[in-house]
Amino acid sequence: KVIWTVLVAILGYASSLPVRDDSLCSAEELAKYKIIFTGKWSQIAFPKQYPLYRPPAQWSSLLGVTHSSDYSMWKKNEYASNGVRDFAEKGEAWVLMKEIEEAGEKIQSVHGIFSAPAISSGTGQTSTELDVHPRHPLVSFVVRIVPSPDWFVGIDSLNLCEGDHWVEEVSVDLFPYDAGTDSGFTFSSPNFATIPQDTVTEITCSSPNHPANSFYYPKLKILPPIAQVTMVKIKKSQLGLSAPIINLPAKTNEIIDSVS
Amino acid sequence: KVIWTVLVAILGYASSLPVRDDSLCSAEELAKYKIIFTGKWSQIAFPKQYPLYRPPAQWSSLLGVTHSSDYSMWKKNEYASNGVRDFAEKGEAWVLMKEIEEAGEKIQSVHGIFSAPAISSGTGQTSTELDVHPRHPLVSFVVRIVPSPDWFVGIDSLNLCEGDHWVEEVSVDLFPYDAGTDSGFTFSSPNFATIPQDTVTEITCSSPNHPANSFYYPKLKILPPIAQVTMVKIKKSQLGLSAPIINLPAKTNEIIDSVS
Repeated sequence: KVIWTVLVAILGYASSLPVRDDSLCSAEELAKYKIIFTGKWSQIAFPKQYPLYRPPAQWSSLLGVTHSSDYSMWKKNEYASNGVRDFAEKGEAWVLMKEIEEAGEKIQSVHGIFSAPAISSGTGQTSTELDVHPRHPLVSFVVRIVPSPDWFVGIDSLNLCEGDHWVEEVSVDLFPYDAGTDSGFTFSSPNFATIPQDTVTEITCSSPNHPANSFYYPKLKILPPIAQVTMVKIKKSQLGLSAPIINLPAKTNEIIDSVS
Repeated sequence: KVIWTVLVAILGYASSLPVRDDSLCSAEELAKYKIIFTGKWSQIAFPKQYPLYRPPAQWSSLLGVTHSSDYSMWKKNEYASNGVRDFAEKGEAWVLMKEIEEAGEKIQSVHGIFSAPAISSGTGQTSTELDVHPRHPLVSFVVRIVPSPDWFVGIDSLNLCEGDHWVEEVSVDLFPYDAGTDSGFTFSSPNFATIPQDTVTEITCSSPNHPANSFYYPKLKILPPIAQVTMVKIKKSQLGLSAPIINLPAKTNEIIDSVS
């Protein structure tokens, strides 16, 4: 359990402070990755107020972008864009897609948008493929937590380039964030706009420090990861759909014992 | 109104009987398209039992595939696969994605999967990009109607290749289909498995011929299209994200008067 906690701490650190300097990437022209998102939002790991009906716990579509350091989709402790607000509050992707397209046209900071289908339960999987490029080696994405006021999980500017080569495989544990645009405290809170808008903050087992909060677990030191993402480089010989078959467990949750 | 009806009839014919012969495609190696899906499921166009709450009318993620005539994602009057059943009933894409990947590995009949984010209302838009290839010039996709028992809209094997060139732009009106796996009659019917499973059938204003059905409008000759899809070829000079900006109206519904 100690090892697991250390691992989570390292991964949490890595995902909140990614290597942002993409100027030194000298890897080959284009790399293709398979990205697999795994929901770990089970009733056993997160028993408090676990949503069972109308709607039950589930995940929105995944919306992501490959980009340079000139662009940022979302960032901890900064204000969410209108597009991220619409996505985090309602799962509505249109404004966010337009923002990304405009960044691609104006400052050439975006290589491509990618998307993966929604997951109709708290613990399923979804996947898609993405391309990175030496000038656009960073990956960001968001997935809305459903139901919730404006909560999401995601990655901000993870660099897949390591000097002269592309990372073979990377997995990151994901924890919930609050987009700072709706003041609801629980998964099924009614809409209640936060005015003025707050910044994006991580939700932990002790913050917001209020017993009513759906993720408030005073006996825990750290929340179990609510999701995980894995990106695996697809070999050139496997282009097309012959992507590596990854046998990730579809409906299990290895972190169950951390809550007991 | 007559012109509009004729247009719909032509488009409906085109989408139900696509050109399936992809053996003659001699177009250039690869073409990239932007695909824009527009929901037209408004309360004005479809007043009967229009879902307003828990959940309100909306569209699932779009899941699509580019392929050869050796593969079929779904087909009118044939049985839906397990993957299409899961997707049409629950919006769960995992099994369908696995089916598509297996078809790509075993019989090389699939070029790629694509996906676009869900739409949180009946009348919004979503989009993504897709690649076609002379050996895989056909496009199929499905979008679940939410809420519904097992109803969806989609395209089956639309050929984007015309002999030695790729189609510049194509729009198709979409009408609801029943996956044949759940016997619910209305948008919010409880789950009630159809045993034995029925084939995929188009839902019209008179079929199923029962007043309780959500799409039963005995005074209409034809339902207004519940959605529309447009595919536009992206010019080579516009690769990356500088796709053509298409100013489709985001929240309007031109077919309103057809119901009055």
